[in-house]
Amino acid sequence: MSPYINLKIVAFAGGVGGAKLAQGLAQTLPPENLTIVVNTGDDFEHLGLYICPDLDTVCYTLAGLANPETGWGRVGETWNTISNVEKLGGPAWFRLGDQDIATHLERTRRLKDGKPLSQITKEFCEAWDIKPSVLPMTDSPVRTMVDSDEGELAFQEYFVHRRCEPRVKGFRFDGVEVAEPAPGVREALASADAIVFCPSNPWVSIDPILKVVREIKKTVVAVSPIIGGKTVKGPAAKMYSELGIEPSALAVARHYRTILTGFVLDNADVNFEKQIKDLDVKTLVTDTLMNQPTDRARLANDVLHFIGSL
Amino acid sequence: MSPYINLKIVAFAGGVGGAKLAQGLAQTLPPENLTIVVNTGDDFEHLGLYICPDLDTVCYTLAGLANPETGWGRVGETWNTISNVEKLGGPAWFRLGDQDIATHLERTRRLKDGKPLSQITKEFCEAWDIKPSVLPMTDSPVRTMVDSDEGELAFQEYFVHRRCEPRVKGFRFDGVEVAEPAPGVREALASADAIVFCPSNPWVSIDPILKVVREIKKTVVAVSPIIGGKTVKGPAAKMYSELGIEPSALAVARHYRTILTGFVLDNADVNFEKQIKDLDVKTLVTDTLMNQPTDRARLANDVLHFIGSL
Repeated sequence: MSPYINLKIVAFAGGVGGAKLAQGLAQTLPPENLTIVVNTGDDFEHLGLYICPDLDTVCYTLAGLANPETGWGRVGETWNTISNVEKLGGPAWFRLGDQDIATHLERTRRLKDGKPLSQITKEFCEAWDIKPSVLPMTDSPVRTMVDSDEGELAFQEYFVHRRCEPRVKGFRFDGVEVAEPAPGVREALASADAIVFCPSNPWVSIDPILKVVREIKKTVVAVSPIIGGKTVKGPAAKMYSELGIEPSALAVARHYRTILTGFVLDNADVNFEKQIKDLDVKTLVTDTLMNQPTDRARLANDVLHFIGSL
Repeated sequence: MSPYINLKIVAFAGGVGGAKLAQGLAQTLPPENLTIVVNTGDDFEHLGLYICPDLDTVCYTLAGLANPETGWGRVGETWNTISNVEKLGGPAWFRLGDQDIATHLERTRRLKDGKPLSQITKEFCEAWDIKPSVLPMTDSPVRTMVDSDEGELAFQEYFVHRRCEPRVKGFRFDGVEVAEPAPGVREALASADAIVFCPSNPWVSIDPILKVVREIKKTVVAVSPIIGGKTVKGPAAKMYSELGIEPSALAVARHYRTILTGFVLDNADVNFEKQIKDLDVKTLVTDTLMNQPTDRARLANDVLHFIGSL
């Protein structure tokens, strides 16, 4: 057994990319040594349902319930509810699957009963047999708002309904000033050996978590979500461009530079290694793509070895 | 064409039996001559959804969307949402199908937007291509409460969750005193040639409608939901027994006697015909079972001819 399995890790994660590395870490570390703190800035209410896209992607992935084709949503999903909502003339732009709707219905019901999101997430993880601790970043409502050339848009409006077409000018996290980290987040951070930023969108997945936790006094290792100037999934590269920053692994390292100890970049981006080292950041250059399920544990292993070496 | 197709009819209906005769009437009368007023005393909120079992059974039946096996619910239904709610430990005793959930989600959403139930029902009927006018008895909340040997139970708790097992002692229609008939109900009653009570439960389907409309000054023809001392579906006969009344077509005729002009009873109950006539009620003895889809229009025809003869 490698000594790194004794490392206590807190992973910050958004959606698909974050969920994949979180699963790799879950396959590698004993469950009591891993806490996954998930962005809730994308959460929204739709059709009367309280939907937590990133929490659900992380949980479905960890539970083996995720659709392996898309990386999000449920495997073997059916769409009978949403297609009938559409026939009734209701809003169908957010494609909720029938199995997925169960999660939202039951979460909404428990929230209305007064349970905090973190408690509900714990109960769902038990039902889905998820062993590591999965925590929403906060139990308070924080809403990512996208300032764009078409005005300010709620995140899902921008992301799903408008397919990231409006040009981004900035971000605001409504409610973040008064939001406290969910129970367990501070304790996990305090006892962690290192914090891993999964390859999630720096602007709208990791930044909201950072704003909620406010300060980090631990070793931080970020895995670049940008490979060869592009994102595997999602609008991070497009956002960098529209904000006037060349999208690259270097841009991501600079984004986090004030808190960064180590940075994991893809072999394709080895040309940036020196510039990143010049930021006084340690580097690991490896294969960061997680196309195959086995890539997840392999990358998690690489990241943990890197942390062990810092 | 028979002259009775010029009759303007208002039908009062509850669930399955009411929906079947309502469909027969819809197949027989021009749509502008038929208004179906549906019990909403069974409505309830469950899993955060506003559910109208009788309205949905009537509409699904009229739209050809009803499950022909059960008479309620949707044809070709799937159960992926509710089975996942169950896996999460949520309440799954009310078996909501995936297609059916779309109705409840979209209705709940529109109610929260401030639309009255009658308007939403009209919009749903347009989406489902239902031509006759279908009206909830009221836009106000009226809740059928069952007084039982186990205390007072909300109707669906008694009906679905407890499977009608508690012994009935009486009924209360919470909110009925202040409920006004839905827009269109009074107008339809005023212009009707006759009111048809479909073969629905007198205690919990027709009585709530009668209490909301308060007075009826028209010809009333009721179709017995009790055949040979039994109900085709539902607890009406059991309720009569538990309330100390022998369940029979005669008991139903007596139930409505103060407002009844004509009564339609099954051939099996011809022995009660004289006693019903003695109530100063005209009778039609016919085959009232609607086992086959074609039975619906046949019975509707019989009822309309009977009304024409009164």
